[in-house]
Amino acid sequence: MRILLTNDDGIYAPGIRALRVELKKLGDVIVVAPATEQSAVGHSVTLLTPLIISEVLDESKEFLGWAVEGRPADCVKLALTELLPEPPDIIVSGMNAGSNAGINVLYSGTVAAAVEGSFFRRTSIAVSLEYTKPKPLDFAKASVYARQIVEQIIAMQPEQGSLFNVNIPALEKGPIVGVRVVPQNITPYLETYDRRIDPRGRTYFWSGSVLSCPDPHPDSDVDALAANYVTITPLQFDLTDHVRLAQLKSQSFTIENAE
Amino acid sequence: MRILLTNDDGIYAPGIRALRVELKKLGDVIVVAPATEQSAVGHSVTLLTPLIISEVLDESKEFLGWAVEGRPADCVKLALTELLPEPPDIIVSGMNAGSNAGINVLYSGTVAAAVEGSFFRRTSIAVSLEYTKPKPLDFAKASVYARQIVEQIIAMQPEQGSLFNVNIPALEKGPIVGVRVVPQNITPYLETYDRRIDPRGRTYFWSGSVLSCPDPHPDSDVDALAANYVTITPLQFDLTDHVRLAQLKSQSFTIENAE
Repeated sequence: MRILLTNDDGIYAPGIRALRVELKKLGDVIVVAPATEQSAVGHSVTLLTPLIISEVLDESKEFLGWAVEGRPADCVKLALTELLPEPPDIIVSGMNAGSNAGINVLYSGTVAAAVEGSFFRRTSIAVSLEYTKPKPLDFAKASVYARQIVEQIIAMQPEQGSLFNVNIPALEKGPIVGVRVVPQNITPYLETYDRRIDPRGRTYFWSGSVLSCPDPHPDSDVDALAANYVTITPLQFDLTDHVRLAQLKSQSFTIENAE
Repeated sequence: MRILLTNDDGIYAPGIRALRVELKKLGDVIVVAPATEQSAVGHSVTLLTPLIISEVLDESKEFLGWAVEGRPADCVKLALTELLPEPPDIIVSGMNAGSNAGINVLYSGTVAAAVEGSFFRRTSIAVSLEYTKPKPLDFAKASVYARQIVEQIIAMQPEQGSLFNVNIPALEKGPIVGVRVVPQNITPYLETYDRRIDPRGRTYFWSGSVLSCPDPHPDSDVDALAANYVTITPLQFDLTDHVRLAQLKSQSFTIENAE
């Protein structure tokens, strides 16, 4: 099996290195990942600046893959159109330092890279590790869990382009209870900002570090992860609201041509 | 009616200024927009750097709103939690220089700002202007069309948090044929890159400028826009694949605890 591995924390992040060690037990792994950290970049892509690449070796001086001075989604695009000698069987993105559950899935570069893989009709899996305390995180242990889930997903022989979002609960919370297949919790978080004045009198804001999800739902990724389950959420990327589409089609909109 | 206007081309872009002129016919408009161009940033958010804001006046030295040194989604978050004296009735994002149809909707900062508005349970409308030739674009004329659509959407009294993606066809293609309510075309575009070597011997790639959608579908935003219709697509932000979720729930995934 050929595996393309990418992430949003950058090619030198510990999460991707640990996940690579485990994924090598399943097949050949080539890494194409951002040269620098790209957290919370969502599905950014680079259109107007050049994407510089460089080859990167691992700790044993073996070929690891390519660092791309771009976004996670750029890495997947470049890998599949230019860099890889053969298309991968699967694409794995991670392991992210921090969970990607609930509405945060939309902000996530880790997930965006997997969505991009799904565009190319490859089975794509985003993997993230929750944490409750400051780093360092035990990515080696978490990657053992992630590899087990990836193995089971592959064994199911999902249809081409299937997309999965996997979260591993914070290891410091205790033993993993099990695995749950759950939908994304789509409740917006309560946002807070800290307003400050800089030495030049300019107003600025820091995004608050404590996010709370005001509407927990027991059958959701946010809640299952909080309860120490590994979560698996199948994703799709059609943003059309098909229910409202059917309703809107019966409306007649008009345009008066301007001169 | 109180209108929050934002965009991804930046507060000094002509598209947002022209749209503001038209939206002022519908109510009070406050602009909170990025200080600089933020195209194709998707649903990026700023977590680790400060969001500096500054007040901006319009051409008549009247208060226009705030420039935010951040992403489109940051602007909406800050506007609703910190900057606006009262919550807006609707949020409009645009007018973008370039269409946001098909899979490009996922890359779009314009659309992401509207999605963020929908998180806050406000009716949110992204507006983009297709173009086929280099700028300058006639945003004044296109904004007349956009305002007509916004008016008709508001008159429908959509439920709180409804989200719409509106595209205006390139004006140089001739008169607008009408308005169509269509789903997002979810066919990936064919990507191309131009591989080059820099003077220091490093390999880099430029994203190709010509994107083609290999699987046109007559009932889609891409095709309706090509045929000179204004397009309206109702959007949603639940990425869960509910069909595969039901199938996957019957699978039993297991985890062996690592030591």
